Amino acid sequence: METGIEFIPSGGVTSPAGFSAGATGAGIKNNGEAILDLGILRSDVSCDAAAVFTTNKVKAAPVILNRQRLERGRATAVIMNSGCANACNGERGLADAAEMAELAARYIGIAPDDVLVASTGVIGPCLPMERIRAAIPDITLSAEGGHEVARAIMTTDTVPKETAVKSSGGFVIGGMAKGSGMIHPDMATMLCFLTTDAQVDRAFLGAALKSAVDVTFNMISVDGDTSTNDMVLLMANGHAGSETITTGSAGAEAFQQALDEVCRYLARAIAADAEGATKRIEVTVGSAASSADARLAARTIVNSPLVKSAVHGSDPNWGRVLAAAGRSGAALEQDRLDLSIGGIQVVKNGCPVAFDEREVVKALDGRDVTIVLDLNAGNAIATAWGCDLSEEYVTINSEYTT
Amino acid sequence: METGIEFIPSGGVTSPAGFSAGATGAGIKNNGEAILDLGILRSDVSCDAAAVFTTNKVKAAPVILNRQRLERGRATAVIMNSGCANACNGERGLADAAEMAELAARYIGIAPDDVLVASTGVIGPCLPMERIRAAIPDITLSAEGGHEVARAIMTTDTVPKETAVKSSGGFVIGGMAKGSGMIHPDMATMLCFLTTDAQVDRAFLGAALKSAVDVTFNMISVDGDTSTNDMVLLMANGHAGSETITTGSAGAEAFQQALDEVCRYLARAIAADAEGATKRIEVTVGSAASSADARLAARTIVNSPLVKSAVHGSDPNWGRVLAAAGRSGAALEQDRLDLSIGGIQVVKNGCPVAFDEREVVKALDGRDVTIVLDLNAGNAIATAWGCDLSEEYVTINSEYTT
Repeated sequence: METGIEFIPSGGVTSPAGFSAGATGAGIKNNGEAILDLGILRSDVSCDAAAVFTTNKVKAAPVILNRQRLERGRATAVIMNSGCANACNGERGLADAAEMAELAARYIGIAPDDVLVASTGVIGPCLPMERIRAAIPDITLSAEGGHEVARAIMTTDTVPKETAVKSSGGFVIGGMAKGSGMIHPDMATMLCFLTTDAQVDRAFLGAALKSAVDVTFNMISVDGDTSTNDMVLLMANGHAGSETITTGSAGAEAFQQALDEVCRYLARAIAADAEGATKRIEVTVGSAASSADARLAARTIVNSPLVKSAVHGSDPNWGRVLAAAGRSGAALEQDRLDLSIGGIQVVKNGCPVAFDEREVVKALDGRDVTIVLDLNAGNAIATAWGCDLSEEYVTINSEYTT
Repeated sequence: METGIEFIPSGGVTSPAGFSAGATGAGIKNNGEAILDLGILRSDVSCDAAAVFTTNKVKAAPVILNRQRLERGRATAVIMNSGCANACNGERGLADAAEMAELAARYIGIAPDDVLVASTGVIGPCLPMERIRAAIPDITLSAEGGHEVARAIMTTDTVPKETAVKSSGGFVIGGMAKGSGMIHPDMATMLCFLTTDAQVDRAFLGAALKSAVDVTFNMISVDGDTSTNDMVLLMANGHAGSETITTGSAGAEAFQQALDEVCRYLARAIAADAEGATKRIEVTVGSAASSADARLAARTIVNSPLVKSAVHGSDPNWGRVLAAAGRSGAALEQDRLDLSIGGIQVVKNGCPVAFDEREVVKALDGRDVTIVLDLNAGNAIATAWGCDLSEEYVTINSEYTT
């Protein structure tokens, strides 16, 4: 089967059939101003659902709640807010998360257990429940509401991140994400909601999601080791009416490909929208002994503050790339390393080659900077995405709560 | 035995008997200006010597050379330069390092194999050997020369870092270090040279050094996973004339204590002199299940860019401290965490307690910021040192080679 993919213009989480969404400004952010900060995403029928959660030992209340509710692998709706992470609030936090779900369930007329919850924002303060109770009736769900909820989950994001693809397999996958980089993206909350009208076997749905996250969102973070609130949720409502997609079935490949594509789009959008970032960095590590080695080296390089600072200043300081690879733990021999920046080879067999420094500076001056490191140790390859480190990042992050 | 320690005013590597040093400006830094960048430190007799080297797989030529030479556990002198790391230069780099040692050996009249080499600076360029050859005769070794070599190894350091202590055990330990923090100190070169006139058994010397480094320099870095050039060298010439200190001997405890003290002083000086830093951060993790857990959590917190940025802006964003501990991998239960900032408790049992935000901001406004996290899981404790993250850090590191 041909596995073609077509991006849907202005696509988002409500592009697949049967999904609707809406948002309102509840005053959770900015003490009462009418900025979108509370939203609901729902399917008109119950969905098979799978999720990947933060591995942080300090978990926000919504994460704890959702893990329990997703044990049976089903969900119909999600209520989400920005402006408050509802983390580190003990029993009160859990009660507030449960009440949020219940309020949403009552409003749209389904069972509370079928509603999941997502929160992002400052850790510590409790949710302003009165404002949430008062604001829910202001939410109008519609098939065009995907753009509203994509805005309602933004914190320091400068742009909403959403997309959708139509697969030749006869289904649509939509997605939205929030996350506005960090020096290490693993420390900022990353939320992603994926929707599809495909009919997907539950076990395959979970496996496909994990596989997609591994090569996309986990390549803009470190070891999947994340913030207190991170979550990637995938809901499949079966409206496309095809045969159930399962491991090895005719549609499996097309589904995985479409899911990877949506996740890759959103992951790159997060990397590009990193706080204070002016450039996107793509690091590919090739000819590694194993996929794990390639991933480790690529992520270590893209997360190196020294590499990020050098890219910011268009400084052709390639030694920092080699040093980051060297400390990554990936199997490598220093005298076999080949390095290119912006397509210009600067290191061969671990030693610098003659190159035109102005050309490398020019490559580093662009909005997209590519770094390719070949370990010459095998056949594995991996790509990681990140951003430069600017003075503005520090300014943003030293003034976040105050 | 009483194990008292007394800091020697203006002490340094030439404070112990029998050590001399000197430096000159060879023009390795800044294309010819007369800034100190080449130095020699020597003992008047052969020393027992131990070292801890970088674990980075990309190793600079001096590290490769020194590892070989220290297999027999002896050394008499070290020649050192700043301005060029002599890393990633293949065979040429190794030949240059060997020639540096040979030039120094000839100048001071000892065997080349008794000379070690240390380089720090930009990775990639080859050493300007003509300048080094020409400059060595300008070096005058003296018992006051410790201050000169401490300056000659500086790169972006703003102050030299040196100290010495006199132990009631009847010996002196001196030390100097270079290293001007980083977001992760593990990526910047850290050089440290320690000298003592104690007579120390070689096996104990190595064990004592490793133990001291673990609780000091490794607590300003991550997992000892370091730059291409890192090295901590300890030379003992036996001039103090006491009995040989060995494991379990009368002087062992006093020696370890004095060595720890010198290393702690230098490690804290590196943390305080971090590039662009305006504040020093000390993180203590207490009542941990194991020492490894305490170390892991303390280092992860002190290295968190979000914590560092918050401290920079005196932002009482304590949630970031808990999130860093949670992702550190240390064993912890979020509802048992107690957190204090500047002595003011802000979290009890994982939930915020009422505190005067202005008081916490005041504590964060100081030059020294202390963070204490109790895991309430056991009896282990560890302290890590770091610094805030400022806009200036980025500026410095985006313009390093250009």
